[in-house]
Amino acid sequence: MNRADFEQRDASDPVGHMRARFVMPEDVIYLDGNSLGALPKGVRERVDEVISAQWSQDLIRSWTKHGWIDLPRRVGNRIAALIGADPDTVVCGDTTSVNLYKAIGAALEMTGGQRILTDSSNFPTDVYVMSGLGEVTIVEPDAVIESIDASFDVIALTEIDYRTGRRHDMETITRAAHSVGALMVWDLAHSAGAFPVDLAGCGVDLAVGCGYKYLNGGPGAPAFLYVAPRHHEAFANPIRGWFGHAAPFDFRLDWEPVAGIDRAQVGTPHVLSMAALDAALDVFDEVELSDLRAKSVELTEGFIALVEKLVPEVELASPRDADLRGSQVSVRHPHGYAVMQALIERGVIGDFRAPDVMRFGFAPLYVRHVDVFDAVTHLREVLDEDAWQEPRFSRPSAVT
Amino acid sequence: MNRADFEQRDASDPVGHMRARFVMPEDVIYLDGNSLGALPKGVRERVDEVISAQWSQDLIRSWTKHGWIDLPRRVGNRIAALIGADPDTVVCGDTTSVNLYKAIGAALEMTGGQRILTDSSNFPTDVYVMSGLGEVTIVEPDAVIESIDASFDVIALTEIDYRTGRRHDMETITRAAHSVGALMVWDLAHSAGAFPVDLAGCGVDLAVGCGYKYLNGGPGAPAFLYVAPRHHEAFANPIRGWFGHAAPFDFRLDWEPVAGIDRAQVGTPHVLSMAALDAALDVFDEVELSDLRAKSVELTEGFIALVEKLVPEVELASPRDADLRGSQVSVRHPHGYAVMQALIERGVIGDFRAPDVMRFGFAPLYVRHVDVFDAVTHLREVLDEDAWQEPRFSRPSAVT
Repeated sequence: MNRADFEQRDASDPVGHMRARFVMPEDVIYLDGNSLGALPKGVRERVDEVISAQWSQDLIRSWTKHGWIDLPRRVGNRIAALIGADPDTVVCGDTTSVNLYKAIGAALEMTGGQRILTDSSNFPTDVYVMSGLGEVTIVEPDAVIESIDASFDVIALTEIDYRTGRRHDMETITRAAHSVGALMVWDLAHSAGAFPVDLAGCGVDLAVGCGYKYLNGGPGAPAFLYVAPRHHEAFANPIRGWFGHAAPFDFRLDWEPVAGIDRAQVGTPHVLSMAALDAALDVFDEVELSDLRAKSVELTEGFIALVEKLVPEVELASPRDADLRGSQVSVRHPHGYAVMQALIERGVIGDFRAPDVMRFGFAPLYVRHVDVFDAVTHLREVLDEDAWQEPRFSRPSAVT
Repeated sequence: MNRADFEQRDASDPVGHMRARFVMPEDVIYLDGNSLGALPKGVRERVDEVISAQWSQDLIRSWTKHGWIDLPRRVGNRIAALIGADPDTVVCGDTTSVNLYKAIGAALEMTGGQRILTDSSNFPTDVYVMSGLGEVTIVEPDAVIESIDASFDVIALTEIDYRTGRRHDMETITRAAHSVGALMVWDLAHSAGAFPVDLAGCGVDLAVGCGYKYLNGGPGAPAFLYVAPRHHEAFANPIRGWFGHAAPFDFRLDWEPVAGIDRAQVGTPHVLSMAALDAALDVFDEVELSDLRAKSVELTEGFIALVEKLVPEVELASPRDADLRGSQVSVRHPHGYAVMQALIERGVIGDFRAPDVMRFGFAPLYVRHVDVFDAVTHLREVLDEDAWQEPRFSRPSAVT
């Protein structure tokens, strides 16, 4: 396993050409696309067109002339195709947190209950959101299946553990939820755009996800919300806004939710941010998610194998079995914070999650196999040189 | 009152130079800035910098390096200065509807009650939002003051009637609300950026507003939320998200809202849209709101005087007294829809609100006095030529 092997993998990579669809710094090994995806070519031009041609020149008329009004549905449909959802079951807009609020709120309303089961690997904002809506029980990830019983109304989980990359079994857990009469809500923050998801096939009730990670929609890109067609009629959006109304331009004062997935909308869509996401999704027209997943597995397997060989003093925090993993690998080191800072100074950008996790994301659209080799080489060198012991890398008290 | 008179007004307009700070089509008289403000110069360049220099090159590091993380507060503070709010009492983010949901939800929670008083001139999305949170009583705008009694927990109104431009007396109504122990929530959608607002002076409890009208932040620009400092500690955001947490990067699972106005935040801010709004606000650094208000009054008074003289067959829907008006003038005509379409074809862009209201907004930053003269001239010509009777201007059944 030398660098030439990884160069060879790149040379025969069926999706290797996709990296050229991104604008990225040359001197960086970017392994944080699970926090903020890189910039796809075409986004800059699209946003500039929206500002300088549409907004500036056509002003208010752009809502119809340039289809701004349709963006939440159009972008929603493009995302639907990436997550195994039927057309007209996904809308784009708001933040992941706000969409989860709508999803959990509506799910509880549908069941008439209050009890939510989640796990300790869920992203904190998800747990915060649900704590404002119902009575939350938190179990360990391994205990989710055995904890599902008829006392729960809603089971709400994130498929991929943001810390370790551990992947939940969406189909089995969803079936278990339904077997006790509960509704199943999935957060696809680290799933959408990284590998194939099959919401319809798994029978998922509601799902949310993020536009700025593997979908590359840009910082704070609008999020998305999926509602299974069988629930459209019963879906009562707790946040009633005019974009979810049956006749928003009638300006009537009585609330009448529109039929279908549009009732999951609330206010005026953030057009500039959503146009960026729309343009970013173009790259997915040129690639199969199954090919991306195959590359992602090869990248993460290669990283783990190299780490096991070259950096045995770190502990693997991710599952060793690729089937149980998303598109990231995390390792533990007692001085993980400082080591990561030293890596970042060398241009190897991953991130750190308390207390000791170094997180490396492998966005298969633009991460190369040689990046894997080089990243592990840098990690070895940082530890050899004790660079992480230098004061400038020490953890500020504000970072815990 | 001939065109030369209006040219003279432009020549001596103390804020006339501000129009050059906007990029606008030359062949258009834009009187719809109350729906979508025009494009300020500098916005295009700022957004492009965020995309092509910050996101593209500095990637995840931009959150701190380029201050993305501070945008909601920084932009919030800039808006605070325009609405008579103290520093650190306003955050930018989400949509107006979502912010109103937070404001009304938190206000009801603070009072422990359920009863909300609003009026029939409120924008429909406001009424939809509150109908999902409490028990809503809707009275006529003129009856608001006499209807306020101790049975209500929250009084929620929009200062400027979106149809007619009629302005509520913020100070008197807020005082009346407080006299019965109710909390007062104002929607400043058609106020912020159009004229001075004095939230602190009026003792307002909570307020929301829109970034894409008179603040010129672009289509679907993020909105804002004000919470009076005396309520910060009691303000319980119904939508609990990590950006409202005391330690969002501790990734703890227990909910602990941050102190101060940041607890009104929810999810990751929409950076591209918010950067556009931030850049758009630069124009307000160069002008006094009192000067903008003076010009706005001159524009609307001039428009009304010309209409009264030249187009007597339309009925004024706005208050005749400028003190009771925002920055728009609305007139009624039985064929208002068709007449407005004919005006738009001529490049005079206002809009229509059912059943018969033609709405003309006068954004004092960029609307010229000659625009007033020319718009009324076009209106006279359209009606003289019966142009509005042509089939292409007839109202589609979908528009009511």
